[in-house]
Amino acid sequence: MKVAKFGGSSVANATQLRKVAEIIRKDPSRKFIVVSAPGKRSGDDDKVTDLLIKMGNAYAQNENYEEQIATVLDRFREIIIDLEISTDILSNIQETIVEVLQREVPINQKLDAIKAIGEDSSAKILSSYLNSLGLAASYLNPKEAGIIVSDEPGNAQILPDSYPKIHTLRDREEILVIPGFFGYTIDGKLMTFSRGGSDITGSIIAAGIKASLYENFTDVDSVFTVNPNIVANPKEITSLTYKEMRELSYAGFSVFHDEALIPSFKESIPVTIKNTNNPDKPGTLIVAEKESQENCVVGIASDIGFSTLFVSKYLMNRELGFGRKLFEILESESVSFEHSPSGIDDLSVIIRDNQLTPEKESIIMNRIKAELNPDTVKIHHDLAMIMIVGEGMMKTIGIAQKATTALTEANVNIKMINQGASDVSMMFGIQAADIKPAIQSLYKVFFED
Amino acid sequence: MKVAKFGGSSVANATQLRKVAEIIRKDPSRKFIVVSAPGKRSGDDDKVTDLLIKMGNAYAQNENYEEQIATVLDRFREIIIDLEISTDILSNIQETIVEVLQREVPINQKLDAIKAIGEDSSAKILSSYLNSLGLAASYLNPKEAGIIVSDEPGNAQILPDSYPKIHTLRDREEILVIPGFFGYTIDGKLMTFSRGGSDITGSIIAAGIKASLYENFTDVDSVFTVNPNIVANPKEITSLTYKEMRELSYAGFSVFHDEALIPSFKESIPVTIKNTNNPDKPGTLIVAEKESQENCVVGIASDIGFSTLFVSKYLMNRELGFGRKLFEILESESVSFEHSPSGIDDLSVIIRDNQLTPEKESIIMNRIKAELNPDTVKIHHDLAMIMIVGEGMMKTIGIAQKATTALTEANVNIKMINQGASDVSMMFGIQAADIKPAIQSLYKVFFED
Repeated sequence: MKVAKFGGSSVANATQLRKVAEIIRKDPSRKFIVVSAPGKRSGDDDKVTDLLIKMGNAYAQNENYEEQIATVLDRFREIIIDLEISTDILSNIQETIVEVLQREVPINQKLDAIKAIGEDSSAKILSSYLNSLGLAASYLNPKEAGIIVSDEPGNAQILPDSYPKIHTLRDREEILVIPGFFGYTIDGKLMTFSRGGSDITGSIIAAGIKASLYENFTDVDSVFTVNPNIVANPKEITSLTYKEMRELSYAGFSVFHDEALIPSFKESIPVTIKNTNNPDKPGTLIVAEKESQENCVVGIASDIGFSTLFVSKYLMNRELGFGRKLFEILESESVSFEHSPSGIDDLSVIIRDNQLTPEKESIIMNRIKAELNPDTVKIHHDLAMIMIVGEGMMKTIGIAQKATTALTEANVNIKMINQGASDVSMMFGIQAADIKPAIQSLYKVFFED
Repeated sequence: MKVAKFGGSSVANATQLRKVAEIIRKDPSRKFIVVSAPGKRSGDDDKVTDLLIKMGNAYAQNENYEEQIATVLDRFREIIIDLEISTDILSNIQETIVEVLQREVPINQKLDAIKAIGEDSSAKILSSYLNSLGLAASYLNPKEAGIIVSDEPGNAQILPDSYPKIHTLRDREEILVIPGFFGYTIDGKLMTFSRGGSDITGSIIAAGIKASLYENFTDVDSVFTVNPNIVANPKEITSLTYKEMRELSYAGFSVFHDEALIPSFKESIPVTIKNTNNPDKPGTLIVAEKESQENCVVGIASDIGFSTLFVSKYLMNRELGFGRKLFEILESESVSFEHSPSGIDDLSVIIRDNQLTPEKESIIMNRIKAELNPDTVKIHHDLAMIMIVGEGMMKTIGIAQKATTALTEANVNIKMINQGASDVSMMFGIQAADIKPAIQSLYKVFFED
């Protein structure tokens, strides 16, 4: 039994939904379908979820929101008419919108309920369309599906009690079409996951029914080995492990909403990324484990926007708890750090720029000076991180040599190397300005030669 | 004005002391002389300090210690007779021993006072010998010198008030011979520094009088670029910075008692390591700063006896304070760690084996499992660390490439690379078994090619 999740571009209009139905029809093991809200039909279009957020904001600020309702309904009307299914569904969607806006709940909850209308309507439309094609399918509300979540509007977390209930869905005969992005608290309040949360719903259903595969249909054929904006037509990744995917997604590979995979990861469910517009392509498969390979590097990711906090103190390494005290300062200033490579008498802390403001920097610097009495403390900006990722890397001699040679040949100064902390990746810090030649040279060495 | 410190081998017998006197005579700016206790005269000889420790232990356990007294006196008698100086000094030493043993003080203090007799006697003998050669010299007790320390027997720390007093010694006309290794508390109790503490005394005096140079006379011509047990006849280091010295001494270069240099470091006093047996050799100079050079690697150090604690958890990097909690566990178990390189979802902690016992390991593992709920936690043993050290490394392109190429050519698997945390070093973790080929190959690349 498979779970297939279709993203916003896959349900953006009738043309796309026909492809979706064809994909579902083609493989009878695709029994659980999770859908996003309709995405953009073209470059300058709006996503339905964004329209709904606007509607919610207008409502919250006591502004007129009739126009937004009309725009949303227009999107769904177009789809319904194009698919030639019953317009009862449009009335149903309209009633839902009115009901949600009138519901007597705190504003946070109401905004969540408004945002959820996009996915909910998608699911209703798709199940009706499948029926019209003669396929046995039902819309299944997340409450009936058993998706019980914590009471955190906009950031709901799945509760473990959900899974036994979800597991019973295996007994259903028909195809179940479930809206992504939201669940219900134990006392029945609708709560959305964080943005991008349809991936989460798919992952939860896959874990709950112990799917043989969680198919994630999107608009790319597969994951590339490197950013195609830096290297033209890069090779595709056919298979990677969860761990590899995590390392890649850290540094610029926005393959997946990160947290989405936790439920599937815990159950070791394989995940595939496929293209709704090109479903016969094998796509990229994410698995718990794989055989180690000769050329073990699967991908090279990169990201900019890092800073380094550098602290130096003679005999630092004799000072029990020095690192702990530094991290406490950062934590108490709510600055989360990425890494903290250390020398003998030096400690660096790699921080994402979004964690820092000039004010915060100066508070941190002053506290470090006052509380840790270092010889030096300074912050460097404009750092880029490169991740070279591949299971089996630790057992393969010469990977670091290949990488450093590639960077040296590109005349790139290596500011930082962090290898060995993870057994599936190697991290390089360089000046952000060097990112293009660095990545191009690394790609050449690992994927072309 | 220079401070010259002579180690145990430099004052082991009359032959050595004649060399010392010649060195002092040759440069009138050598006004402050700090001496150790006599060291071994040959391979199977005892150091006087070890004899004194035996004497102290015998005393503490109410055993007969007459024989130890006799052995110690024999050592000094031999020197005094060979140098043809007044045997009054021998009586003086004997009286000191008796007085110390009878002194009504707690046992810790008494043991400190016994240990200090070696250095104290050395200083008395040398000053008398200098006098006999017609040089104006005085023995100067650390109390008169102004070395005021904390009340910590065997681990005294210098107090800042000492320095102004020491500074006034600049006005003395004659050569001052000061015993190393001990000072006095504000209320007059004798306390020794940690073992090897004559280096500390020299460093304190150098800082106090703001010496132009702190000369550390020992029995090697200079510091080698690499361990001569691994590479035969390696090149010598002519000059290195404090920071470089610290990095090298961390991993197997026991050039100096580490903490010894703090006082000199704080005053940026240059330190030289020279050979009493070969004083015309330039030796190795340790300075606060130096010009960056073309081939910036000054030395390669290595050490075994490391373990890695590896912790992995999906989405670890989203968990604010994860590292801090891990370090708190280690700190509360009194385990000091060396480094903590981290990946996205992984954290490694490099720990010296001497910090761990099997019991402690299992306590730590269990606490981590219980308190941090990781996906994986494990400990790897038998790791060796290699430090490639040199100021200017960070600004030089290609150092990492040279190093990784050398290791790959030696067929060494690199378990860990930590570069960039320190701006003067690059750290590699490898299997301890690979240390010889690794170092030999690195030496070839950085010092021979």
